[in-house]
Amino acid sequence: MKNSIGSAVILTVFGESHGNSVGAVLDGMAPGIEVDNDFIASQLLLRRPVGDISTPRREQDEFVIESGIFNGKTTGTPICIAVPNTDTRSADYSENRAKARPGHADFTAYAKYHGFEDYRGGGHFSGRVTAGIVAVGAVAVAALRKKGIFVGTHISSAADIHDRPFADLGADISELSKKQFAVLDESAGENMIKAISLAKAEGDSVGGVLETAVIGMPSGVGEPWFDGVENMLSRALFGIPAVKGVEFGTGFELCGMRGSSANDCFAFKDGRLTAPTNNNGGINGGITNGMPLIFRCAVKPTPTISLKQETVDFIKGENTLLEARGRHDPCIVHRARVVVDSITAIVLCDMLAVRYGTDWLGE
Amino acid sequence: MKNSIGSAVILTVFGESHGNSVGAVLDGMAPGIEVDNDFIASQLLLRRPVGDISTPRREQDEFVIESGIFNGKTTGTPICIAVPNTDTRSADYSENRAKARPGHADFTAYAKYHGFEDYRGGGHFSGRVTAGIVAVGAVAVAALRKKGIFVGTHISSAADIHDRPFADLGADISELSKKQFAVLDESAGENMIKAISLAKAEGDSVGGVLETAVIGMPSGVGEPWFDGVENMLSRALFGIPAVKGVEFGTGFELCGMRGSSANDCFAFKDGRLTAPTNNNGGINGGITNGMPLIFRCAVKPTPTISLKQETVDFIKGENTLLEARGRHDPCIVHRARVVVDSITAIVLCDMLAVRYGTDWLGE
Amino acid sequence: MKNSIGSAVILTVFGESHGNSVGAVLDGMAPGIEVDNDFIASQLLLRRPVGDISTPRREQDEFVIESGIFNGKTTGTPICIAVPNTDTRSADYSENRAKARPGHADFTAYAKYHGFEDYRGGGHFSGRVTAGIVAVGAVAVAALRKKGIFVGTHISSAADIHDRPFADLGADISELSKKQFAVLDESAGENMIKAISLAKAEGDSVGGVLETAVIGMPSGVGEPWFDGVENMLSRALFGIPAVKGVEFGTGFELCGMRGSSANDCFAFKDGRLTAPTNNNGGINGGITNGMPLIFRCAVKPTPTISLKQETVDFIKGENTLLEARGRHDPCIVHRARVVVDSITAIVLCDMLAVRYGTDWLGE
Amino acid sequence: MKNSIGSAVILTVFGESHGNSVGAVLDGMAPGIEVDNDFIASQLLLRRPVGDISTPRREQDEFVIESGIFNGKTTGTPICIAVPNTDTRSADYSENRAKARPGHADFTAYAKYHGFEDYRGGGHFSGRVTAGIVAVGAVAVAALRKKGIFVGTHISSAADIHDRPFADLGADISELSKKQFAVLDESAGENMIKAISLAKAEGDSVGGVLETAVIGMPSGVGEPWFDGVENMLSRALFGIPAVKGVEFGTGFELCGMRGSSANDCFAFKDGRLTAPTNNNGGINGGITNGMPLIFRCAVKPTPTISLKQETVDFIKGENTLLEARGRHDPCIVHRARVVVDSITAIVLCDMLAVRYGTDWLGE
Repeated sequence: MKNSIGSAVILTVFGESHGNSVGAVLDGMAPGIEVDNDFIASQLLLRRPVGDISTPRREQDEFVIESGIFNGKTTGTPICIAVPNTDTRSADYSENRAKARPGHADFTAYAKYHGFEDYRGGGHFSGRVTAGIVAVGAVAVAALRKKGIFVGTHISSAADIHDRPFADLGADISELSKKQFAVLDESAGENMIKAISLAKAEGDSVGGVLETAVIGMPSGVGEPWFDGVENMLSRALFGIPAVKGVEFGTGFELCGMRGSSANDCFAFKDGRLTAPTNNNGGINGGITNGMPLIFRCAVKPTPTISLKQETVDFIKGENTLLEARGRHDPCIVHRARVVVDSITAIVLCDMLAVRYGTDWLGE
Repeated sequence: MKNSIGSAVILTVFGESHGNSVGAVLDGMAPGIEVDNDFIASQLLLRRPVGDISTPRREQDEFVIESGIFNGKTTGTPICIAVPNTDTRSADYSENRAKARPGHADFTAYAKYHGFEDYRGGGHFSGRVTAGIVAVGAVAVAALRKKGIFVGTHISSAADIHDRPFADLGADISELSKKQFAVLDESAGENMIKAISLAKAEGDSVGGVLETAVIGMPSGVGEPWFDGVENMLSRALFGIPAVKGVEFGTGFELCGMRGSSANDCFAFKDGRLTAPTNNNGGINGGITNGMPLIFRCAVKPTPTISLKQETVDFIKGENTLLEARGRHDPCIVHRARVVVDSITAIVLCDMLAVRYGTDWLGE
Repeated sequence: MKNSIGSAVILTVFGESHGNSVGAVLDGMAPGIEVDNDFIASQLLLRRPVGDISTPRREQDEFVIESGIFNGKTTGTPICIAVPNTDTRSADYSENRAKARPGHADFTAYAKYHGFEDYRGGGHFSGRVTAGIVAVGAVAVAALRKKGIFVGTHISSAADIHDRPFADLGADISELSKKQFAVLDESAGENMIKAISLAKAEGDSVGGVLETAVIGMPSGVGEPWFDGVENMLSRALFGIPAVKGVEFGTGFELCGMRGSSANDCFAFKDGRLTAPTNNNGGINGGITNGMPLIFRCAVKPTPTISLKQETVDFIKGENTLLEARGRHDPCIVHRARVVVDSITAIVLCDMLAVRYGTDWLGE
Repeated sequence: MKNSIGSAVILTVFGESHGNSVGAVLDGMAPGIEVDNDFIASQLLLRRPVGDISTPRREQDEFVIESGIFNGKTTGTPICIAVPNTDTRSADYSENRAKARPGHADFTAYAKYHGFEDYRGGGHFSGRVTAGIVAVGAVAVAALRKKGIFVGTHISSAADIHDRPFADLGADISELSKKQFAVLDESAGENMIKAISLAKAEGDSVGGVLETAVIGMPSGVGEPWFDGVENMLSRALFGIPAVKGVEFGTGFELCGMRGSSANDCFAFKDGRLTAPTNNNGGINGGITNGMPLIFRCAVKPTPTISLKQETVDFIKGENTLLEARGRHDPCIVHRARVVVDSITAIVLCDMLAVRYGTDWLGE
């Protein structure tokens, strides 16, 4: 469905970086979910640049609820939120219009759209489009919390500096929800920021790993084969610009283990399934087993860098050099965090609505 | 769509391990694609056990083309292929019916289907269902080859023993297509088989990594945000039992790199986009750039092992011990290879049909 | 989704008239629904020819449950039922291969499939494919009945002879379920059969109107704009070969009425919404209001007739004459009845599963 | 997909009558289609009230292109157009909040959304939402015209007064495109307007039939069984408020004919399929045969009338009387015309994009 995802709760994104607005439509959310404008604003704030390690582009991310919310609650009909583009300096982009920025979608957009694409600032491929996802995602996050389901993501690593692993998930998720730079170990966070600043000073950029935990999911959610939790989440997460890998539970590390270590030995505790390990990340056969969901996203280094790079001019059809001028982030891992949270919440709302019907999330 | 995937070319799977048959419907394939029954049979053969490192279950995997093929060519209407279950020993499974095999979907199937699931041999969650995917997938593989698009997967690692990396992709893919145990370095393969045999002897199992390359894909294929190549492939690949991670290009390793190394510096060679590196695995912004697609799947160790394991009886609601009796594989990585190839071919046919219309693949 | 329909309960059809089998996959039905093989057989019997007014083709319509039913109940996983083609005389069809039978899909199939279509007996466009729909539809019909929801269709008219209108819906639907030739007024039925026989004797065919009532549907089912009851039912019903019109409630007759007569004046009776009229056929804004669903399908005269017809040879590209030889029905209205019932039941199961979740129908 | 429709070109509607705006997202349109703002405005104008036979609500229907259009052409990414609500008098609606207007979706919206629905002016069920469809539909209409495909709809009847039938389709469609009140016979139109005025004077309303013709469609477009032209168009057309019946070609009238008259006897003329009749409305087996598409929509009388009506208060659960106060139309048939044109164009663009790929419409 191209720019849409979901079967019972459906997200559609629209917008270009330098168009009138970016935004999203979220259809199928249950009626009666309380929507706090301040919460939407605070979620959008988590997407904002941090200190001097981010782009100097300074938009307020004001948002307009076009539809679907009435008297502070969801109506059950499509929620459309637009985030107007205000601080756009299009002149920055015309000069290098046909120089494919390495690591970006400039060439592929041209290959697909034949030059009709809005090339300014990455156009429809810009990370800015995620503002719409975060805005409508706030409704999904709020709905899940009311149901005792909490999503939290930390910067597991950035610039090869590692945060401590998740420990007490409930406490960790609660702590992360208050942080602009989402690390569990503050000193690791400081080192990350230093490393990011250093990369910036050198005209370069860094990547990292985002690790997400979800607690409170009931067991038995998910469909076999192609609509399982891993299928649906991975499809959505790979929509986030710069994500190049997704793994669940112990992920790629499982490949070197033996079955006797990799298997989670089940035990009932207070009627709920538990295991000393959670190598499967709360999912067996695509379906939740009631243990926490755990997954990680690989976020590549921001492709925009100040250093000179070899590339092509795809209109002239010749090789050339590119020196980036526009504003850019030396690292987007910390800003992508709330996008992961938002899209995860949307996908889980979809799966819960499939399982329990259209009303459950609002009850 | 639960057991279906795709928008222009749609795969639907059905069947249980011990039901009448497993199979698949592939709808939307162009008319006029030549279908060779021997090729379907040979693809199914690649899914068969190898020597003594696999399950002794010995089904012929005979298949029945129910529809969609006429005079040796696709008609353009749904292709249904059924693979009857013949060698089923259901008695093996009744005793431990409610003992959740660790790492398997027994408990989650129960949580979802309330005990009505066909529990024999993993039922609908059995790897056996992939026989249907491989059967109809052979049509997709054949269609791509006619178009100069070739898919190849090797066992990048098994039991922590590593194959050599891809080198000359054309030659490597061609070589792999002839191998039952798909390694590029035969001596690595022998060591893998020894390690698998050892694990088997110890009642245990091993996992591995499958690495896939696709050459010949045109640029400009894929849709932004949610129907990109990464989105669609990952959603499909996570449908394969035991896959717990998917990464594209350099994947998780990108996270520790800097942008200046991670970016693929483009250059035109003979009018085609190239780069000395292919860290993005042939995909920018979800859309093909014309370079080879590269991705890896993490395959966890086979969850069924002979060793005694702690688990729960989910009907009695009590903790218990499990000793597996049924037939099982100490490693499924080598058998999953052709499933990865098949599902990759199906997804790419879908994306090409979206891009170029319903007829292109048969032209 | 081409040969598939539905979002929570998904029907996929496959098969050609002279292929190995026709059949259908029904995915997403709740687990635990009782499935009686005799009931499936009896529903298939309602699709069979009646006396001498139908095609002499005499297949037993034996069916094979490939998957999804275990111990006499649905498992919750895809139900695949195949109906093998046994009594096929392909030789009848080769001679006139490229003569477009007027009113049939021969030319359009050729235009779409470029000659690769299986042209024997209408191929994938044959009414025979509906056998698969009726087989899996029996599960949907049975599920609805357990929930107190009953679907009944009568031959409102055939050959311009009119049945009496619905009166006591409960009694009428019950009565119809026992009839092979589904009329409420037996004498009207006899006249219809005479008129059909007469048309047959003259080498011609007749059409008719099927009127359907559904009682017991809860209010509040359906989605606005494009997934309402009218949207979903009409999309499915137009899939039945020969259906050229669908209207709900008073339908086209409403167009000449005034609002004051057309509006259904609501009143509560025993807590349930009622009205002296039901001009809207139980649907407002696409959503059920709790009153009976009422709709009608226009079934055109069987296009195959014995009379000589002018037409084209689309391979030679020239005008020609056609004299039909194969077996055919002078009327399919009475046989289409159970197809309407089946597809209606499937669509309603889909909408109820969207509304109340995956389990409701089996509870 | 609830408020979305389409598989290659996807329409999503959002908005409530008295919310911030109504609008639509059209995703999947080819890049490079010229978009003339004046044409969008002129299409929206056709939805506007006519003289004194329509609602006195006087909104300018100004529209905001949020995304997807750049330098006067489609980019290929989602086109979002919002139509702000400006002239809303919400006070009119609060008093009768729980009185179900007969023929409207008030009760069913309450049954579905449990009172959280935006009830003002019909909320999400308001005909006003069609402004978004017409706005983005203008892009589809323009794209088809460039390809030589023209859609035209006339008021076949209103208040039981009948327009003349289609004659020279090319000339008729061209003529209709210039008319605010779309009749082929001006004197019939004058009589209709008189009859509508009379109904209005009597506090009542009237309905009518809209008949649509499409010329220029290539043959071979459409998918069998569930994605045929009839399936897709009917699903979309029933989304238009007040449509209660859809028929193709000769429709319900076919039911009383014999096959020998109902069949269209094919003949090639200048290489194109023709027939003296077009009883099948250009469609066989769901697929276009190259002849003009013909279909009719039954539009019921506007449910809002000034006359006192019996109904229920669904919050109090008691029977009551309703006297409508808000602004309303005595007839919406003439205003629905451009909605039918727009949604038809969108569905056909979808089907053509499925058939010929993502770029064809812009080439």
